[in-house]
Amino acid sequence: MKHFSLSFKNSKLTIIDQTKLPLKVSYLEIKTIKDAFTAIKRLKVRGAPLIGVFAGYSVYVSIKNIKTKSKKAFLKTVFNNIQHLKISRPTAVNLFWALDRIQNKIIANKNRSIKTIKTVIKNESRAIHNEDIKLCQGIAAFGAKLIKPKDAILTHCNAGFLATSGQGTALAIIYRAHKRYPGIKVFADETRPLLQGARLTAWELTSRKIDTTLICDNAAAALIKAGQIDKTIVGADRITKDGAAANKIGTYSLAVLCKYHKIPFYVAAPSSTFDLNLRSWRSIPIEERSPQEIKSVFGKAIAPKKVKAYNPAFDITPPQLITAIITEKGIIRPPYGKNIKKVIG
Amino acid sequence: MKHFSLSFKNSKLTIIDQTKLPLKVSYLEIKTIKDAFTAIKRLKVRGAPLIGVFAGYSVYVSIKNIKTKSKKAFLKTVFNNIQHLKISRPTAVNLFWALDRIQNKIIANKNRSIKTIKTVIKNESRAIHNEDIKLCQGIAAFGAKLIKPKDAILTHCNAGFLATSGQGTALAIIYRAHKRYPGIKVFADETRPLLQGARLTAWELTSRKIDTTLICDNAAAALIKAGQIDKTIVGADRITKDGAAANKIGTYSLAVLCKYHKIPFYVAAPSSTFDLNLRSWRSIPIEERSPQEIKSVFGKAIAPKKVKAYNPAFDITPPQLITAIITEKGIIRPPYGKNIKKVIG
Repeated sequence: MKHFSLSFKNSKLTIIDQTKLPLKVSYLEIKTIKDAFTAIKRLKVRGAPLIGVFAGYSVYVSIKNIKTKSKKAFLKTVFNNIQHLKISRPTAVNLFWALDRIQNKIIANKNRSIKTIKTVIKNESRAIHNEDIKLCQGIAAFGAKLIKPKDAILTHCNAGFLATSGQGTALAIIYRAHKRYPGIKVFADETRPLLQGARLTAWELTSRKIDTTLICDNAAAALIKAGQIDKTIVGADRITKDGAAANKIGTYSLAVLCKYHKIPFYVAAPSSTFDLNLRSWRSIPIEERSPQEIKSVFGKAIAPKKVKAYNPAFDITPPQLITAIITEKGIIRPPYGKNIKKVIG
Repeated sequence: MKHFSLSFKNSKLTIIDQTKLPLKVSYLEIKTIKDAFTAIKRLKVRGAPLIGVFAGYSVYVSIKNIKTKSKKAFLKTVFNNIQHLKISRPTAVNLFWALDRIQNKIIANKNRSIKTIKTVIKNESRAIHNEDIKLCQGIAAFGAKLIKPKDAILTHCNAGFLATSGQGTALAIIYRAHKRYPGIKVFADETRPLLQGARLTAWELTSRKIDTTLICDNAAAALIKAGQIDKTIVGADRITKDGAAANKIGTYSLAVLCKYHKIPFYVAAPSSTFDLNLRSWRSIPIEERSPQEIKSVFGKAIAPKKVKAYNPAFDITPPQLITAIITEKGIIRPPYGKNIKKVIG
């Protein structure tokens, strides 16, 4: 069986449970808004673009069986469900973007029948899904042009088919480039505390037969210094109109290290990741997760009970550290203030 | 009971088993050279200065009960044991330094009785031990002068009482400064893959009631950028005459980050950590440890079986990234080529 991050067939929403990987490949059906909220919150489903697609379908499956004849009661439930999902995670903009799209479609069709509104939600979710697959293809096509035959590429966290409903963002570029240049190599940061690099990226890349080496996050600097890395490509959870990128904690660290050692640092993300309304990167809320995620690994304590731990899930990389942003609409280079407007709109 | 890293009493050598911390405090008696070798190799005992002290006593306990009357046979065993310990770990110079001291003492006394030579080994080991305790005190006294009342100090790996037979190197400074300035705070990098920061440093610091926050290695950059770190202090396993420092993997990363953000980066180490014979940092052997240390945590797999992992135990920080080296003989500042010679000899 070919693995997938998310499937929507016969109105059934199924996801791979990412918290179980790589030890166990198990799929999970989402039936209620509570299922969906928990799946996002506990990172059973993750990756900024995938969360967007997932959120749309989640709203649909959560209301598809509502039997009421009262439009008011129906819409109240739908909007409540949308609002509830919005508070599941704060940083990735794709979640809000997708839910707003669904909400706007509902509002535009609010005078139509409950049955029709249900179909509108389903169709809009499917549209977001299909677009996401195409966005990944676009990013892959533009990004692959930046890859050379023997490149050693560093990546952080997971920006692959597990993070999208298509082939990924950063990893889609690698998959595309690998077809042309089978000699490329990838170094994957393990990405503490939740080890998305070790658990997800290493699993994806080895399942695609790509030469992959796992490293601890703190070893990247020494590898870069030794000339063993040609470029870094990461995904993003939110990008401002000035080109600052929020992404998994540790991304900023890599960006500084690449700048210091003069190697390219690329961010790959679809246009839905841009938040052009944001006044400044300072307005991006950074999710702070439980200290327990640091203090234990798979339930096993690795630190004294009484020590404090600080666990921000994301950091912000300023535009001056980003060599280029790879989108489905093209490769955006500095000055970002001007060029993001030109390419993204 | 007050915890200790190593004790030598009534000719019995006992160490705390550092692989069991922080979940279990258990002590281990070392009786044979095989015990000693395994303890070093498996990091039951670790920390450059502590390994030096431990190696001396290990040679003694491994030969104290030899009954032979043949001087030749006795010396052969002693020298074999010394040689064997030398291949336990390659990077920290203190191991070789201590074993060479013992060996030179034996050679200088080789015409004396077996009983006397045994006493010579014991006394030299005790001398190394007593010196180590004083070296820590010296480093603490000089280093504490660099600390301000409200400092937030970042440290990596473990350079405390578990890494020496005294109060430590980097952490000894913090212990000393804390007596004067109880408002200081410490951020401890967890230090993957073996988590010496989470398991050992967090345990040490909280047991001494110091305000400690554990972070993932990849979060240091964002904290530094946010102005939450005033300075970084780490230990070292070997320092060249030009001031390049080998230390736990991830140290170089921090040094670059401190340089980029213009905060001080200090290395604390006794004079026994300097290897003045080395022509260049390129001659420092970097221990590469098993990929399994990355791919599993406490025996639990966290990565796919078939993925490769690269696990260097150390990296090298070049002199231009080090603000000062804190030794028991004083604080050494650049230019290191000149000033190390002046202070260390």
